This record gives sequence, C-alpha cells and structure tokens, in this order.
Amino acid sequence: MIIPNFNDVKAAEDIIKTYANRTPVLSSRTLNQMFSVEIFFKCENFQKVGAFKFRGACNAVFSLSEKEAKKGVATHSSGNHAQALALAAKIRGIEAHIVMPENSTQVKIDAVAGYGANIIFCKPTLDARESTLDEVVKKTDAIFIHPYDNPKVIAGQGTAALELLSDVKDLDYVIAPVGGGGLLSGTLISVSFLSPDTKVIAAEPEGADDAYRSINEGKIIPSLNPNTVCDGLLTSLGEINFEIIKKHIYRIITVSDKSIINAMRLIWERMKIIVEPSSAITLAILLENKINLSGNRIGIIISGGNVDLKKLPWL
Amino acid sequence: MIIPNFNDVKAAEDIIKTYANRTPVLSSRTLNQMFSVEIFFKCENFQKVGAFKFRGACNAVFSLSEKEAKKGVATHSSGNHAQALALAAKIRGIEAHIVMPENSTQVKIDAVAGYGANIIFCKPTLDARESTLDEVVKKTDAIFIHPYDNPKVIAGQGTAALELLSDVKDLDYVIAPVGGGGLLSGTLISVSFLSPDTKVIAAEPEGADDAYRSINEGKIIPSLNPNTVCDGLLTSLGEINFEIIKKHIYRIITVSDKSIINAMRLIWERMKIIVEPSSAITLAILLENKINLSGNRIGIIISGGNVDLKKLPWL
Repeated sequence: MIIPNFNDVKAAEDIIKTYANRTPVLSSRTLNQMFSVEIFFKCENFQKVGAFKFRGACNAVFSLSEKEAKKGVATHSSGNHAQALALAAKIRGIEAHIVMPENSTQVKIDAVAGYGANIIFCKPTLDARESTLDEVVKKTDAIFIHPYDNPKVIAGQGTAALELLSDVKDLDYVIAPVGGGGLLSGTLISVSFLSPDTKVIAAEPEGADDAYRSINEGKIIPSLNPNTVCDGLLTSLGEINFEIIKKHIYRIITVSDKSIINAMRLIWERMKIIVEPSSAITLAILLENKINLSGNRIGIIISGGNVDLKKLPWL
Repeated sequence: MIIPNFNDVKAAEDIIKTYANRTPVLSSRTLNQMFSVEIFFKCENFQKVGAFKFRGACNAVFSLSEKEAKKGVATHSSGNHAQALALAAKIRGIEAHIVMPENSTQVKIDAVAGYGANIIFCKPTLDARESTLDEVVKKTDAIFIHPYDNPKVIAGQGTAALELLSDVKDLDYVIAPVGGGGLLSGTLISVSFLSPDTKVIAAEPEGADDAYRSINEGKIIPSLNPNTVCDGLLTSLGEINFEIIKKHIYRIITVSDKSIINAMRLIWERMKIIVEPSSAITLAILLENKINLSGNRIGIIISGGNVDLKKLPWL
C-alpha cells in the first residue's frame, strides 16, 4: 500500500494549478455570531464540476506517463467522481470509460456524456459495478482511477486544505465530511504537516456511520444499507484512507439528517451559496453542539454544490 | 429636484465602506463559453441583508445630521429596502418605522423585526401604504427615506458599479435590472463618469415594462397591474431616477418570465450562487439574444439573493 504524504500534496498542487480553480474562502458574520465562532468556508462548490473531486481526478490523470495516458482511464461512479474524471481526461485529450448504474439521474449522465466520456451502464449494485469495470479494463487496458482509495486522488484532494491553510492562519479546527475518505485523508495530510496544532474533525451522517465505527473498532467496517440525505457519503472507507485517518484524526462526529438539512438551508439563506447535503453536514456539527467549539477559529471544507434543484430536502 | 452626480457616489463610498460588504466579482467559464462573451458578475446577493439596497439605505441614514438622525427614519416597503433601512438604523442606533402591508410574508416581517424596527401594518394597497406612512411621519417626525426616489439612496446604489469598474476594466456593456430605478440610475452615474464608452443596458420584465414605455414616451408611465416573477421590479420609476435614466441609458430591453426563470436556474446550477429573479433577468437578456453581445466584456449587477426557498419558480 502506498501512503501519500505532504510531498505528494505539494506535487499535486503544482500539477493541477493550471486546470483547477483556486476556490475562495468565504465567511458569514451572521453565522459567526450565531455560533460564537469564526468560520472560514473553503468553497469547493465553486470548483470545476461543482466539487472537490476534480482535484483528485485531475492529479491522477495528469500524473500518468504518456504511455499510461494513451490507454485511457476508467472508473465506476454515479456521482461527482464520474464527471471529474471525464473532464480531466477530456482536458488531457485521453479516453475515459465510466461505468454508471442504469438508474443514474439523467442530469448526471448528460454531464458525463457532455465531457465526451464513454459511458457503460450496469445494474445498480456494487457487484455489477465492479464486474462491469473489470470487463471494461480488461477490454480497453484503461487505467482504473479509484474514486478515493488511490494515492494520487488523495494527494489531489489534500490541495483544498493546503490552499485553505495558506489563506487563513491559526485555525483551531478544520471540519471535513467523510464518506470514502478521500477528502478527509487528503485534508489530514495537509493539516497535520502545515499546522500540527489544528485539530481535524470529520462529520458523518448518523445513518452512514461506518467511518465512526471503523475508527472505534480499529478496522474497516463496511457501510451496509446507509440511509442518509448525504448522497456523497454512502461508501465505505478505503484502505489507504483508513490508515491516514486512523493516524491523524481528532474526532469523528455523527449528526442527524434533520440537522444536516437545517444546516444546508442556513447556508443557502445566509450565505446565498448552493451547497449539497454532504457539505452542509460540517455546519450541522455546530448546530448539534456535540462538541463545544465556541470562541474558536474553524476551517470548513465545503465539498460541493451539486444538488437536484427540483428535489430540495426541505420541500 | 436634486439630481445626484458622481461626487455624491464617491461620498457615499466613503460613508458606507465601514458598514457595507465589498462584494466579490465572479465569473463562470461555462456561461462565458455558452454565450461567447466575458461576463463579470458583481454579486450584491452577498451584500448585507442579501441585496444592494443596503448601500442606499446606509448612505441615507449615515448622511443625516445628528439632529436629523435623532428623529429616526421611516419608509414603506415589504421588501429588501425595509430590511436595509432597519439594519442601517440599528447600526446608527436610531429608530426605524417601517410601514408594511399586512399580507407581507412572515420571513420578511421577522427579518425587519429582528433588526429592532418598529413595524406598522397597513392594508396592501399603495394608497394605504402612503397614508399610513404620512401618519407615522406626522406622529414621530421621523425622516422619510424613499426606497429609490432619493438622491442619497441613488448615490449609495451607485457604489456597486463604482466597485465593479474599479475591479474590472474595459467593459463594453453593463447590464442592470430596472424597477423603481434606484440601482439603474446609480449605476448610470458611475458608469457614465468612470467609463463613458461603456453602454448601460437595463433589463425589465415584459409584464412590468413601465420603464421601457416611459423612456419611449419621454414621460413616466406608471406601473399598473404588473405581472412578473420579479417581485423586486414591480414599482414605477421615480422622478429623479427617470431624469438620470433618460440622460444616460443606452437601451432598455424587456424579457419574458420564462427566460428569467431559465436564467435564474442557469446561474444557480452553473455558478452555485443564489440569485433572485429580479437579478437573473440580466442574464435573460443574453438568453433571449435580442441584442448581439457576442465577443464583448459585460458587467452584470446581481442585485440580490432573497428567495423563498420553498417556492422556487421552476417547481
């Protein structure tokens, strides 16, 4: 297993800076007053494809040698990683083969197709996704880019926290969501190196608390039948991710979907930015107040803003 | 009639800079490609109270002498000006009397009350609003701050375009919405002084095209029975506003509600920011393509982001 370190994040920063947005860090006086804290939101909802996923996919694609790149890349994903990999491959001018469950929403299929990727549909089960991907890779010799359990992807995701820490000093806490653990492990690499006194908290839905249980039990507990509004946080931890999280995490805190939806609406109403539930979960930690953060300076990674505007969770 | 000029806008800039947000200018590669233009969005949805209105109200309130200020301020408004005036008065520590129609939405009433203003309800007609305000002013001796037909308010609104032009050079066009004309006339003062070659286009709903007709006929045509999704653009032009618009406007272009809703959704989906219909109308001009703007550098004033998140116009 290759565990990426801060040098890999620095290298990723160099590689992706031509293609990825340097996203802004926003604050809200209203929210700061409401929670008696200073929050700095790193807004990856303004990243290309609307999510941090572009950083990791871009680093993975542009880290390939010429010879590797010619083979193209492949993955299975119904979400932001699919779009991110498709766009990164398009920019590099190579093929992307994306295995998508046949029940993916049309808007996501259109987005991936819009980047010129080759879409292969499969039954909506993890088994079908993996076996279909295996076939695709066998047939095309394309290189599989895992959505999170991949050192280049993790290093790419770590550049968001790297930028946050270069823009904002003396943070007491950084809060990031955890699903498969790509964003969280990348964040931990950057924060533990650049600001070792800053504590990293992971936010996880109560209905998909496999990372919480994995860290408690010291081994990866798979995410079975997750039930949460956070469609980006359904997957189990990856192996590389688990090693990094185990080593550096301060706490994983779980929150209810109700708080997540309240936090999402609060951000929309007060900050006038569109964030997805899987991002709003970070602010839900302050709403539930399971840990006393008052008086602190808190960095929050807003992971993305891809929301079906016809199906808002408060409607 | 006192017609404000660019010196008044400069003075307003000095007065409000302590209290108002210097809002960011955002761009979207996707939208630029879609319309073959370069658009620079001046994001007043990130302004205090969620709209440019705070600039004008703040300038009006802080331009009062100590003696005047002690009397308090008053207005009638069910919308953003009510909140803006209430907040500006609160910051200065003076009383604000806000006449609101009794059918105002609870969220707006709560917001105004939250700033500590004295709310007086009236029947939901213009007559009732004006007569109730007259009574309030007679009783309290408070100073009436008109939502747009007021030189200090206009000068305050002009600071948005002033900031835009200081951040972005060589704009071919600036597009702003027009309702009562406060934002548009302030914008015209700044643009005509700072960048005389830049043409200012006003965007107006087809179902509330009184400004279009007023400019065509050379006199103010009242807005009767307006019918549009743009709840911020229902009012008739003010007299001062009309004089300034008549002198400097390049064109007023009307667009359909359908295009406005499509433009609003496009901004939400592509830029991940929340804008109200009365702001999205500016981009609707590019969607309807009634004027060929391709290849140009265009500044767009996003006037605000106050939307009822339970009643989105595409639902």
